[in-house]
Amino acid sequence: MTLRIERLFPPLVWGRAYSGRVFVHDLMAAVIVTIMLIPQSLAYALLAGLPAEIGLYASILPLVGYALFGSSRTLAVGPVAVVSLMTASALGTLDLPSTAAAIAAAGALAVLSGLMLLALGILRLGVIANYLSHPVIAGFITASGLLIAASQLKHILGVPVHGHTLPELALSFAEEAVSIHGPTLLLGVITIGFLFWVRSGLTPALQRIGLSKGSAQMLSRTGPVLAVAATTVAAWYWDLEGQGVAIVGDVPAGLPPLGMPLFDAGLFLALAGPALLISIIGFVESVSVAQTLAAKRRQRIDPDQELIGLGAANIAAGVSSGYPVTGGFARSVVNFDAGAETPAAGLLTAVGILLAALFLTPALYYLPKATLAATIIVAVLSLVDLSILRRAWRYSRADFAAVLTTITLTLLMGVEIGVGAGVVLSILLFIAKTARPHVAEVGLVPGTQHFRNILRHEVVTDPTVLTLRIDESLYFANASRMEDYIYDRVVGDKDLAHVVLMCSAVNEIDMSALESLEAINHRLADLGLTLHLSEVKGPVMDRLRRSAFLSELTGQVFLSQYDAFTTLCRSSENQHEAV
Amino acid sequence: MTLRIERLFPPLVWGRAYSGRVFVHDLMAAVIVTIMLIPQSLAYALLAGLPAEIGLYASILPLVGYALFGSSRTLAVGPVAVVSLMTASALGTLDLPSTAAAIAAAGALAVLSGLMLLALGILRLGVIANYLSHPVIAGFITASGLLIAASQLKHILGVPVHGHTLPELALSFAEEAVSIHGPTLLLGVITIGFLFWVRSGLTPALQRIGLSKGSAQMLSRTGPVLAVAATTVAAWYWDLEGQGVAIVGDVPAGLPPLGMPLFDAGLFLALAGPALLISIIGFVESVSVAQTLAAKRRQRIDPDQELIGLGAANIAAGVSSGYPVTGGFARSVVNFDAGAETPAAGLLTAVGILLAALFLTPALYYLPKATLAATIIVAVLSLVDLSILRRAWRYSRADFAAVLTTITLTLLMGVEIGVGAGVVLSILLFIAKTARPHVAEVGLVPGTQHFRNILRHEVVTDPTVLTLRIDESLYFANASRMEDYIYDRVVGDKDLAHVVLMCSAVNEIDMSALESLEAINHRLADLGLTLHLSEVKGPVMDRLRRSAFLSELTGQVFLSQYDAFTTLCRSSENQHEAV
Repeated sequence: MTLRIERLFPPLVWGRAYSGRVFVHDLMAAVIVTIMLIPQSLAYALLAGLPAEIGLYASILPLVGYALFGSSRTLAVGPVAVVSLMTASALGTLDLPSTAAAIAAAGALAVLSGLMLLALGILRLGVIANYLSHPVIAGFITASGLLIAASQLKHILGVPVHGHTLPELALSFAEEAVSIHGPTLLLGVITIGFLFWVRSGLTPALQRIGLSKGSAQMLSRTGPVLAVAATTVAAWYWDLEGQGVAIVGDVPAGLPPLGMPLFDAGLFLALAGPALLISIIGFVESVSVAQTLAAKRRQRIDPDQELIGLGAANIAAGVSSGYPVTGGFARSVVNFDAGAETPAAGLLTAVGILLAALFLTPALYYLPKATLAATIIVAVLSLVDLSILRRAWRYSRADFAAVLTTITLTLLMGVEIGVGAGVVLSILLFIAKTARPHVAEVGLVPGTQHFRNILRHEVVTDPTVLTLRIDESLYFANASRMEDYIYDRVVGDKDLAHVVLMCSAVNEIDMSALESLEAINHRLADLGLTLHLSEVKGPVMDRLRRSAFLSELTGQVFLSQYDAFTTLCRSSENQHEAV
Repeated sequence: MTLRIERLFPPLVWGRAYSGRVFVHDLMAAVIVTIMLIPQSLAYALLAGLPAEIGLYASILPLVGYALFGSSRTLAVGPVAVVSLMTASALGTLDLPSTAAAIAAAGALAVLSGLMLLALGILRLGVIANYLSHPVIAGFITASGLLIAASQLKHILGVPVHGHTLPELALSFAEEAVSIHGPTLLLGVITIGFLFWVRSGLTPALQRIGLSKGSAQMLSRTGPVLAVAATTVAAWYWDLEGQGVAIVGDVPAGLPPLGMPLFDAGLFLALAGPALLISIIGFVESVSVAQTLAAKRRQRIDPDQELIGLGAANIAAGVSSGYPVTGGFARSVVNFDAGAETPAAGLLTAVGILLAALFLTPALYYLPKATLAATIIVAVLSLVDLSILRRAWRYSRADFAAVLTTITLTLLMGVEIGVGAGVVLSILLFIAKTARPHVAEVGLVPGTQHFRNILRHEVVTDPTVLTLRIDESLYFANASRMEDYIYDRVVGDKDLAHVVLMCSAVNEIDMSALESLEAINHRLADLGLTLHLSEVKGPVMDRLRRSAFLSELTGQVFLSQYDAFTTLCRSSENQHEAV
C-alpha cells in the first residue's frame, strides 16, 4: 500500500530506486524526444495563433511540473495539436489588440485550466471524463484533425486566411484563391510529400539496408527535423524570404519570462468555459495514452493523480509564458520506445528544450512557416479516422448519431459547440433509451431453472401465470409506460391469475416508479389478479422495505423466478382441482 | 378496435349511445359545475393578472373544444390555479402597456400552448410528460400553492403588492405593511374562516342533520358561491367600496369577443418557452386527474388524444378572449360525483357560463376582490403538501434532492426556473447513479440454480471462479469504472482462473463499453485469466454479434449462470487433477 504522501508526490517512489543504468536510459529517450519536440513545439504554437517561441516555453517548465506530480512513468507532455486548436478557438473569441495580449491570454488560459485540473484531482472528480463517450471523443479528434489541416493550408498556399470553422475557412479561402503564392506552394507540397514518404516508405527502406525495425522506426521519427533543417538551409541559400515565402523570423533567445498572468476578472470569466473543455479533453487524451503505455509494462495509472500532474504542468505553463499543454500520443510513444523508465526523462527533455531556447533560436530565423504547417498537416491527418462512422453505424444507431453530430458540429460550428453537443446528445439518447425499456415475456428453459424470452427460446409457460422481465431500472421516465404496458397485456387474458414482475434487471425503483407499482398493484387487484415480484436485488429490496408497498402487495416477493413459477403454477392447479 | 376517425373525434362513440336518461345526468352535473365554476373563473383570472370576465370567457368555448376532442368522459376544463400563476409569470416578463395588451398576450399564450399541445398529440409525443418525475411535480405544485397564496394576500390586506417570487413578494409587502386596510382585512379573514369551516365542519354537520355523505359534500362545494353572494350583498348594503374595499366593478356583459390574437413574431418568441411549460404542466395535471377518474369507472384515457383535446381547448380559449386552460382537479371530481356520464356535461356547463356572462355580470359589480382572493387561498392551500419532503427523504436521497430543489427554486426564482431545474436535476441524478453501478460478487444459493450476492446470502463459491453481477447497463459513463473495478478485484487473487460477468442486469452495451470489454478481455488474458459472460439478454447479444468481441473473447457466453458455474468448476477440477 502506497502512503498518501508518496502517492501525491511520486518521485518519492521512483527516485528511491534511481540508478546510473536508469539515468542512461532516460537520457537516451530525452535526447530523441527533444529532437522531435522542437519542430512540434514551434508548429503547434503557430497553430494556436501564438509566436513560435511560446511553443518552446510550453515545453520546459510544464515538463518539470508533470515529472514531479504525474503518475505515469513515460508520458511526455507539451503542446499538442487538438489543445492548440482549442486554444486558438478560445483566443479567437476574444478581441485581442496585440500579440502581447494574446500571449497573456494564453497564459491565463493555461493557469485557469491548471487550477481546474488540480481542483478535479483534489476532489477526485476524474470520473467527469467518463461522460465523454468513446464515439464523441473519436468524432471530436477526427473533426479536429480535419479542421487543423484545413487551417494550416494557408501556410502551404501562402495566403492570409482566418476562421475557426470549416465554413469560415472555406469562405476566406474562396476570397484569397487568386493570390496563391507559387514558391510557397512548391515548398509546402515537397515537404508534405517528403514527410509522407518518411512515414510510409523510409522505415521499410532502412530495414532493407539492415537496420532493426525499432531503429528504423526511431530514425523515421527524425523526418520533421530533417525537413526543418533542409528547408531552413534552402530558404537561407536561395533567399526565399525575398521571393515572398513566409519565414519564422526573429525568435528571441533566452529563458522564458516568468510571472503570473495578470488577474483580469472579465478575461478569466470569458475563458472559464474553454478552459474547462481544454482541461477535460486534454485529460482524456493524456490519460488514455498514459494507460495504454502503463498497461504494456504492467504499471498502473492513478487518474486523480494524473489530474494533479497535468494541473501542475498547466500552471507551470501559465507562469512561464507558455500555453495549455497535455500528454501527447506520438511523443509519449517515442519516449516509451526509446527506453524511458522514469519521469526523469521528462526533466532531461526540459533541459534539452531549455538549451534549444537559449542557443538554437538564431538558427530558426530562415525556417519557412510552410515547413511547420506541413509537419502539422502530416501529423494530424493520422488523427483523422472516418471509419469510426462506419463502425458506429454497424454497432448502434445511438453511437452513430453521437459521432455524426460531434463531427458535423465541430466542423461547422467549432470545437466547443461540437464536443458539447456530442456530450449532451449522448446523455439524452441514453435517457431516451432507458425511457423505452425492452420487456420480455419469459418462460422456463426445460431441464433448467432458467427463464428466457418466449419469443427467442423454447420455453415452458403456464396460462395462469404471466411473467414479465423488465429490462431496465424503473424510474420516472419509464414508470407510466410500464404501467400502460402491463394493463394492455393483461386486459382480456381470461385465464390469467398471477402477474410476476421479474426484477433481475431492475437496478433501481425511484419514487415515481414506486407510485406506478402501487397503482399497478391496485389495478390488477381490481381485475382479480395477484401481483408478485421475483429476483429483486438487495439494494432495491432495501428501499422497498422503507415504503408501504410491500405490505400492500397482493402477492409475494420470490427469491428466484423458479420459486415463483413453481409455487404459482401449483397454487393455480390446486385451485383448478378444487373447482 | 376503435376506428382511427372515432378515436380522433370521440363524440362519434359516446354520441351514438346518447339518451334522455344520460342527458338528465349530464345536465344535473353541469348545473352544479357551473355554480362552482363562476367564482373560480373570476378569481383565477385575477390571479393571472387579467380582468375578471376573461375567466368567464375561458370557461365557455374551451369547454366546447375539449368536449369535442378530449378522451375523458368526465374531465372538466377551464382556468386552474397553477396555470393561472404561470400565465401571470409569463405576462410579467413582458412589458405590457395596457390591460388590452395583457388580454391580447394571454390569448396569444393560449393559442401557442394549444398549437404545441396539438403538435405533441399528433406526433404522439405525450411521453415527454414522463420526464416530469413525481417528486418534481409534487414539489412544483406545493411551491405554486404557496406562491399563489402569498400573491393573493395583497387582496386580503388591501395593499398593492407585486412580484412573482417569494423574495419579490416579501420585499413588496415589507414596503406596504404600514398601509394595511382594516375593513378589507376583516372581510378577508371572515371569508377565509367561513370557507375553511365549510371545508372541514359543514359536511359532518349536514350529515348529522340527516343528509347523505354525497349530498352533504355536494352542498359544501357551494361554499364559495355562498361567500360570493353574501359578501356582494354586504358590500352593496354597507357601501364597502366607499370605505376603500376593492370591488370587481364593471364586468362587461355579453358574448366573449372572437378573433385571432394578432400575430407578432417577437411576442410569440418571447412566449414560446412559457407556453411549452404551461402545455406540459397543464397536460400532466389534467391527464392525471382524467386517469384517476377513468380508472374508477374502468374507462381508459388516451394520452395523445388528451393532448389533442387540450390543444383544441386552448386554441378555443385564445380565439375567444380567454387564457390558457386545462383540466382541473376539484371541478372534475364534482362533475364526476354529480353523475356526469359524457362530455356533453361540459357542453352544458359552457352554456351555463355563457348565460352567466350574458346576464349575471351586473350582479358581480359589488363583489369584493378580497372574497375572490379568499376562495383562491383556501383552494390552493389544499395543493400544499410538504409531507412529500419527508416521504422523499425516507425513500431516496435523489428524490429528496429533486423535491427540495424544485420547491426552493420555484419559491425563490419563479415557476419556470423551478420546474426546469427540477427536471434537469432529476436527469443528472439518474445519470450519476447509473455511472456508479452496484456490483455484486455472487454465489450459488444451495439447493437451487439461483445466484445471489455473497455478502447478503449463504452461497456456494469456488476459488477458481469469480462471478460479478453488474447491476447496470454498460455505457460510456460507467465503462471505465467497471474496467478499474474488475482489475482491482482480480489483482493478487492467485487461485483465480475464470472471471464471469453475469449480465442479467445489463440492458445495453454501447460502443464505449464494448471497447472496455475488449480491454478487459485482453488484460485478463495477460494475467492468465479467462473471461466469460452469462445470461446475456437477446437484444444485447444481437448487438455483440455485430462486433468482433465474441470472436476475441477468451472464454464463452453461457445461457445461464448455473451453466457457467458448473462448467467452469468442473474444468478447474480437471485441470487440478491433471496437475
